Amino acid sequence: MSDYPQKVTFREEGAREGFQSESQIIPTGEKVRLINALSRTGVRLLQVTSFVHPKWVPQMADAEDVVAQIEMGPAVRYFGAYLNEQGLDRAIATGRLKQYGVLTQYCSETYAKKNVNRSNQEIISTFPQLCQRYRKLGLDTYGMIIAAFGSNYDGEVPLSGVLAAVDQFVQTSLDQGVKYERIVLADSFGWANPEQIKRVIGAIRERHPDLYIGLHLHDTRGTGMANFYAALSMGVGYFDTAIGGMGGSPFAKGAAGNIPTEDAAFLCEELGIDTGLDLDMLIECAKMAEAIVGHLLPGKLAHGGSLTGYRKR
Amino acid sequence: MSDYPQKVTFREEGAREGFQSESQIIPTGEKVRLINALSRTGVRLLQVTSFVHPKWVPQMADAEDVVAQIEMGPAVRYFGAYLNEQGLDRAIATGRLKQYGVLTQYCSETYAKKNVNRSNQEIISTFPQLCQRYRKLGLDTYGMIIAAFGSNYDGEVPLSGVLAAVDQFVQTSLDQGVKYERIVLADSFGWANPEQIKRVIGAIRERHPDLYIGLHLHDTRGTGMANFYAALSMGVGYFDTAIGGMGGSPFAKGAAGNIPTEDAAFLCEELGIDTGLDLDMLIECAKMAEAIVGHLLPGKLAHGGSLTGYRKR
Repeated sequence: MSDYPQKVTFREEGAREGFQSESQIIPTGEKVRLINALSRTGVRLLQVTSFVHPKWVPQMADAEDVVAQIEMGPAVRYFGAYLNEQGLDRAIATGRLKQYGVLTQYCSETYAKKNVNRSNQEIISTFPQLCQRYRKLGLDTYGMIIAAFGSNYDGEVPLSGVLAAVDQFVQTSLDQGVKYERIVLADSFGWANPEQIKRVIGAIRERHPDLYIGLHLHDTRGTGMANFYAALSMGVGYFDTAIGGMGGSPFAKGAAGNIPTEDAAFLCEELGIDTGLDLDMLIECAKMAEAIVGHLLPGKLAHGGSLTGYRKR
Repeated sequence: MSDYPQKVTFREEGAREGFQSESQIIPTGEKVRLINALSRTGVRLLQVTSFVHPKWVPQMADAEDVVAQIEMGPAVRYFGAYLNEQGLDRAIATGRLKQYGVLTQYCSETYAKKNVNRSNQEIISTFPQLCQRYRKLGLDTYGMIIAAFGSNYDGEVPLSGVLAAVDQFVQTSLDQGVKYERIVLADSFGWANPEQIKRVIGAIRERHPDLYIGLHLHDTRGTGMANFYAALSMGVGYFDTAIGGMGGSPFAKGAAGNIPTEDAAFLCEELGIDTGLDLDMLIECAKMAEAIVGHLLPGKLAHGGSLTGYRKR
């Protein structure tokens, strides 16, 4: 009937990608309050902050404080984002996070320049050194492909461009003896449409049948949930999402937030796909996030309500 | 590869269902300004107001004035909503509208009571008289099934319930010699999920292969665009939408607006489906609608921007 996955894993990014895009500085205690609440929703992967230079992202200047103050739940993996080795050092120095090693590539040269001030080729040339580091530290590693579906800076991304990045990741990991968990394709600029999602995933599967694929979707042009559904129908079982649909990169102008965790989880539950998440607790978190940022967020379920109560009647 | 329709027809409901759900009274001139702008987007079907009693919906008290003041484009069909024969009389009396005859059924008894103070059986018993009237007036006629996918009042709607309503519509039209254009299934409470959309449409097609099916989708729980995409993949080529995603029934608590016209049109264009609509003009209309209602609307494309400019580079 369909190729839906039995189970979907969400990686919650609200506390990082979400808060990061707010212009007003959010108090550390409020960030911690949301993270603690998210810890109780059943989410397994929780990105709590970003170890970037406060000059570039002032909102994340309290990264170490956030990590020090959160109450850690036993079944949750906590980690932070980082853009370079200094960032990784800071994350590890907290002593409380279980970091990932990440090999990030860009399908948009201009965006690479803006984000990390390097060309994609320069980025790739650092992979052997990064892999060595990750191996030494014993980090679980994954690949990330930024702007995999198009970019406001450099336009359309041909299928061959994404496939080249995937091949690069697989080959480097093999060469460097790194055992990777997955590759995540990011629609950083909200260019993807459902057919493109299916085409790209199908093409990757043909070349790398055993590669576990995840998606990082933004709802910049209203296609986020349709893309999510298309990916589910291809069996994709791993997604980066943000509570309430918070987010958008401060460097990707006009980019809307990630698809909302609670809306995505609701759709999964309606399709009979297990998420391990408690919808009512997610709704509480989305409302808390709205209260903290002080404005409405794009997520719908927190306002429409889940169907559990209505079905019980 | 897929069953996408070659062409999708949108029926724009922003000026009716959209404005109707605003608590603050919108000046007639502002409504007219938006309708005039929408007339130039390429939209073919434009619902401009609702002929309901101002006691129940004060926002629509200026229905006749709106109709008198709009500048009518040649390729657009203008019409108003109505809930009973008095409403239809008012619409016809304007002398400027090309009304439809509508046979409306409810898959939620409680919602029928709240909306028109009748049971569904009582509603059906009026069909012969209505059909006679529509025939005499020479109105194009269609069927509408409210709460076809579930209701906050009465819970889930079994497939058999929707099919019975469809059968009733087809049989009545046949008995009464009414030639109908289509049947529209309304997800009035935002209960539908993509699998349900496919199941219901597939089941109707099996029984009535030649029946032209349309959808009226609300994005109450974040599934609106995924449902839209699922319907496209079933070949559905007719949708009620609202510019900016305005709307929500004043009697369906918590209901969010219709899916946004501009986002739905964007998705179609990206999938290679013709809409006849100008995306940039739709974006201007969505921005105008936000300015008129004085708050952000859920539509994304007006903020994310279309891809036309980026692709030209």
